[in-house]
Amino acid sequence: MPLDNPRSNFSKWYDEVLLRASIVDVRTPTKGANVLMPNGYEIWEAIKNFMNKKFKETGHKNAYFPLLIPEEFLQRESAHFEGFIPEVAWVTHVGNTKLPQKFALRPTSETIMYHMYAQWIHSHADLPLKYNQWCNIIRWDTKETRPLLRDREFFWSEAHTAHSTYEEAAKQVEQSMEIYQSLFDALCLSYLTFQRPDHDKFAGAEYTIAYDAPLPNGKVLQIGTTHHLGNNFAKPFDVKFLDTDGETKFVFQTSYGISTRLIASILSIHGDDQGLILPPKFAPTQIVIVPIIFKKKSEGILEACQELEDELVELGYRVFADLREQYTSGWKFSEWEMHGVPLRLEIGPRDLKNNSVLAARRDTLEKENVARGELGDFISDVFDKMAIYLKKRADAALASLMRNARTLAELKEIMRNNRGIVKSNWCEDVECAKKVKDETSSSILGTRQGVIETPDGPCLVCGNEGKVVAYIASSY
Amino acid sequence: MPLDNPRSNFSKWYDEVLLRASIVDVRTPTKGANVLMPNGYEIWEAIKNFMNKKFKETGHKNAYFPLLIPEEFLQRESAHFEGFIPEVAWVTHVGNTKLPQKFALRPTSETIMYHMYAQWIHSHADLPLKYNQWCNIIRWDTKETRPLLRDREFFWSEAHTAHSTYEEAAKQVEQSMEIYQSLFDALCLSYLTFQRPDHDKFAGAEYTIAYDAPLPNGKVLQIGTTHHLGNNFAKPFDVKFLDTDGETKFVFQTSYGISTRLIASILSIHGDDQGLILPPKFAPTQIVIVPIIFKKKSEGILEACQELEDELVELGYRVFADLREQYTSGWKFSEWEMHGVPLRLEIGPRDLKNNSVLAARRDTLEKENVARGELGDFISDVFDKMAIYLKKRADAALASLMRNARTLAELKEIMRNNRGIVKSNWCEDVECAKKVKDETSSSILGTRQGVIETPDGPCLVCGNEGKVVAYIASSY
Repeated sequence: MPLDNPRSNFSKWYDEVLLRASIVDVRTPTKGANVLMPNGYEIWEAIKNFMNKKFKETGHKNAYFPLLIPEEFLQRESAHFEGFIPEVAWVTHVGNTKLPQKFALRPTSETIMYHMYAQWIHSHADLPLKYNQWCNIIRWDTKETRPLLRDREFFWSEAHTAHSTYEEAAKQVEQSMEIYQSLFDALCLSYLTFQRPDHDKFAGAEYTIAYDAPLPNGKVLQIGTTHHLGNNFAKPFDVKFLDTDGETKFVFQTSYGISTRLIASILSIHGDDQGLILPPKFAPTQIVIVPIIFKKKSEGILEACQELEDELVELGYRVFADLREQYTSGWKFSEWEMHGVPLRLEIGPRDLKNNSVLAARRDTLEKENVARGELGDFISDVFDKMAIYLKKRADAALASLMRNARTLAELKEIMRNNRGIVKSNWCEDVECAKKVKDETSSSILGTRQGVIETPDGPCLVCGNEGKVVAYIASSY
Repeated sequence: MPLDNPRSNFSKWYDEVLLRASIVDVRTPTKGANVLMPNGYEIWEAIKNFMNKKFKETGHKNAYFPLLIPEEFLQRESAHFEGFIPEVAWVTHVGNTKLPQKFALRPTSETIMYHMYAQWIHSHADLPLKYNQWCNIIRWDTKETRPLLRDREFFWSEAHTAHSTYEEAAKQVEQSMEIYQSLFDALCLSYLTFQRPDHDKFAGAEYTIAYDAPLPNGKVLQIGTTHHLGNNFAKPFDVKFLDTDGETKFVFQTSYGISTRLIASILSIHGDDQGLILPPKFAPTQIVIVPIIFKKKSEGILEACQELEDELVELGYRVFADLREQYTSGWKFSEWEMHGVPLRLEIGPRDLKNNSVLAARRDTLEKENVARGELGDFISDVFDKMAIYLKKRADAALASLMRNARTLAELKEIMRNNRGIVKSNWCEDVECAKKVKDETSSSILGTRQGVIETPDGPCLVCGNEGKVVAYIASSY
């Protein structure tokens, strides 16, 4: 049964592909907390492996902090507390006994981590301190939940750093941007980096940098964030150090994270109406081998498929030779296309005779005969080509969504029809931002990070002087 | 500052080494829920990698299920519910709102997983089903907590399988035993496998197999368990399949797990009064390189250390060249011995001249000059030797703890003095088991799994006929 087209009916396509490609199963008793199925889980593991290498290169260490956070910790930074309180899940009892104080399930770990940082940091020699945590997060979002896009329980990586000065923390913000860029590039994603407007920054941050990637339905998805925390947390958590000048000072901090949302982004932007298309580096199965059996001439084919599997595993690829007899080769083609396996290799009687295989790319669906002796080079070459192709396609998808609006009426028109990422002029007044949100179902993403843009007209809402060039989209 | 000896003052040694070797930091606001520090975290990651390979070879898939479990799910299997209720942490509120039903933080995942299994399993072709989950577990133990030994939050692996028959499930129990044996062997552990007595089996199981390893203080630690669940969960969770004979039947299930407790076992049994001794395969840092600098003759030494690091990283080892100038080489020796780094390589002026290094083994503390050209072979050889040495030492430690007791008085005497694992005859009456527990601070571990032993006398407690040979120890 073919899928819908992700561009014409994203929602239906998305739900179906998650289930059929073994990414997520939502049939749990806990709305918004789903089962991350084997393929979804393995994509996340591949992302973790990539990130752990980057973290090691850049001096981050992994550790794990408690899930339960005392209420009093969350309260210490008031903006932080107010930002998270509506969606915090509270543990109040153990067995039949009420606890003397209640604990939050971590909606994020600044407070518990900085309680430890205060014990670990004493002098400038202890800085910078850079820890990362991979963990589950609970945010009991009361809005509509959507698997991977808006979950009540999800996985993430949260890195937390401490520095001697504001400027060093700002540099760390830049390093995080570089790390994420390398990840997003490897995932063949196309995205924009924004500084979020003040009214939408992280609760407790000086400023927030966010990475937004488009989805096929013209909405955008925040796939990561970086926060400069100033010493907003250092003060209430008393994270101090003895500086080289003999003075005791508060540290400056940053935090940054990516989550399983990233999987939603990869699946959605690369997929098509046959199912997923996974970037070869991150695909749980990179190559599937399918025997083409005709009753009279099938001799040696299954063995050849098995041999080829062994050979390619030896080369370090994740390979599956689908030798199951109860399925036709046509069924197998569809199944593995649905799963997004980058490369399919077919061996039939003629291939066996010619000592070749038929190779089918998942991205372009092109087929090609490849001599067995050239297969190693072919695969490494075609995987590079696929990554380039997927990235170009993602770039084109992002470019095709860019719009301009000079007035709220124009913005409304865009959001009513085909949606997109709308460039406009804004006076920076939060009332105008609110009006955008209330009247258009979209919101101000912020200003481009690292790109200087000058307003060329008045604020799209109030008509007063445009102070910044802002981008507006409908987001998850 | 030297450590205590783990054999003479285990408790003090343990607490100190956890902190100094960056394994666990207990200074959290949540008693029993600690910070797993970078070295502890990396050992766990190494265990995960080992297990994931085994799981793949044996057809297990990884997935992730929700942390929060509806109360009603736990209640469906009554023994299970009663077993876990005293230590369950309950989520009752979100934000300021009371939830219509409360959720347990998973103390184990049978119920939530089998709710999904009921949706995934329809026919015999869906069996066996074998999923594993790596996750955090919350058991709000009200007894004294001890880091890694008895935590309120810890990590584990829980594998859950479903089969057509009782016998197939029993075979799966055996496969789990083989998998764990390969892991425990790789970790150089020595342990005994028991079938737990009925009164101490897992809540909801037909029978429980447990793996107990000794600690230096003569207590034992349960480092893993396997449960045959019969169809005790299949019935309340309605996990059924259409069998080949056309009949619809309940599946038979098993579950088995290991946890971060395993880390406590490795650290304790291999460590000495210099700190940790880590099995080379699982050590976060396998080799440390220390330059020996004399002011006049230090030329080229730092460079040689750096080159050697690069060379060994290239060979696939986890290496750290400790080139820090603020520490003496003596300080570095102690530091890395504390961390349990298996091999230290020193380069001084004479080594540089002779194109050799001085290699110091962490286990035996032996030193040896090795020519640079032979270093690759030397390391792979010495790592094998260390694994053998550690395993032999662990075997000897276990053997030295084996005792016999014919009466409760003899048992009391052993438990009062040097403790140990005591072999005795037992009538299988739960009242006698209770008496052992109440009067000796030890308990019956069970009967040896896979070893046929015939009682040679009356029950050590009541003097009636001894029906089984039971083993007794004080455990965490």
